Amino acid sequence: MILYGYFRSSAAYRVRIALNLKGLDWQQAPINLLKAEQLGDNYKAINPQGLLPALALSDGRIIAQSGAILEWLEEQHPDTSLLPEDPFTRAQVRSVAAHIACDIHPLNNLSIMQYLKAELGADDTEVSHWYAHWVARGFSALEHMLQHSAGNYCFGDSPTLADCYLVPQMFNARRFKVPLDNYPLLTRICDYCDEQDAFIQAQPGNQPDAV
Amino acid sequence: MILYGYFRSSAAYRVRIALNLKGLDWQQAPINLLKAEQLGDNYKAINPQGLLPALALSDGRIIAQSGAILEWLEEQHPDTSLLPEDPFTRAQVRSVAAHIACDIHPLNNLSIMQYLKAELGADDTEVSHWYAHWVARGFSALEHMLQHSAGNYCFGDSPTLADCYLVPQMFNARRFKVPLDNYPLLTRICDYCDEQDAFIQAQPGNQPDAV
Repeated sequence: MILYGYFRSSAAYRVRIALNLKGLDWQQAPINLLKAEQLGDNYKAINPQGLLPALALSDGRIIAQSGAILEWLEEQHPDTSLLPEDPFTRAQVRSVAAHIACDIHPLNNLSIMQYLKAELGADDTEVSHWYAHWVARGFSALEHMLQHSAGNYCFGDSPTLADCYLVPQMFNARRFKVPLDNYPLLTRICDYCDEQDAFIQAQPGNQPDAV
Repeated sequence: MILYGYFRSSAAYRVRIALNLKGLDWQQAPINLLKAEQLGDNYKAINPQGLLPALALSDGRIIAQSGAILEWLEEQHPDTSLLPEDPFTRAQVRSVAAHIACDIHPLNNLSIMQYLKAELGADDTEVSHWYAHWVARGFSALEHMLQHSAGNYCFGDSPTLADCYLVPQMFNARRFKVPLDNYPLLTRICDYCDEQDAFIQAQPGNQPDAV
């Protein structure tokens, strides 16, 4: 399998963590977001959405969108499951993942921040406030939601899809210097994850296209 | 089951369609987004994310996030499945759903448009351009993606989760007068869906809190 990604793409980072946790063989094909390679004809022929990541299966077929890739990996490689067995807890894991995927990350994407500056004339301070605003809304809810479920990971002592989403979002928040004092539980979970091999190997700084 | 929603919430609209397609018994509890009831203490005790929708199960437990609710419904009520059997096609359905859920809808939410106006001083024209920009990016990709899969619905002649996501997004696009000439396939699929009972009964105008 080949993962089309970018070292700082947090959606690609999610998939890297899952591929590592499941112990699968995979390679990566870097697509440089800063050079807008995702919008070039070559990549759009692979993924017409023009977004990262996309996973090329061994037969060449393509799955786009991290959420779709992760559910496919879960269905095809259930042995090291990233969803708990209990149906309600599975739903809670997916709820955490969706809150990050739908209510934090999309608002803080590179393309959105570029639009705010170019089209709406936002300056760096306004973009920073924008960024921090949506992180704070989301992380406050997650800090509350995970109080009763967390162990070393978001849900007990085994990694789930929730950790695959949380760790890249925390990486981004730190990169953009968002205050994190109000989220001691999220910070502790991410610090623990950042000591585990599957997470370490997925970190942006450890990718071949890191600069 | 009780669905906490709002007639115009397109994330709640998705869930209404799925509940109807599956023929389940459910009731709704309206939460007025224009009055910011989703941020009040009463609702935040139910869903700390302060977002719609949330589904209260028959035992009172709560699932937040439409994506998590829809996957839970699919796992618990697989008889009228909204995911195809073929693993790769399932992934394509989820890819369409995620593209709408992560790359169109979050950018066009009420709370985001309110922020653009209040914090960044955007005027109505700028907000309309913002809205149309993300719809155009997403719909262009979907129009391309669905060329080879569409029948009456996004994937063949049975409804899937992709239709549950597309129809509310199209409703929103029409409400905000986004040009749709470039999306004849999406338009045809949504027009067909809008003639089916499960979709009709889920329409915003047919909800008890519609004004």
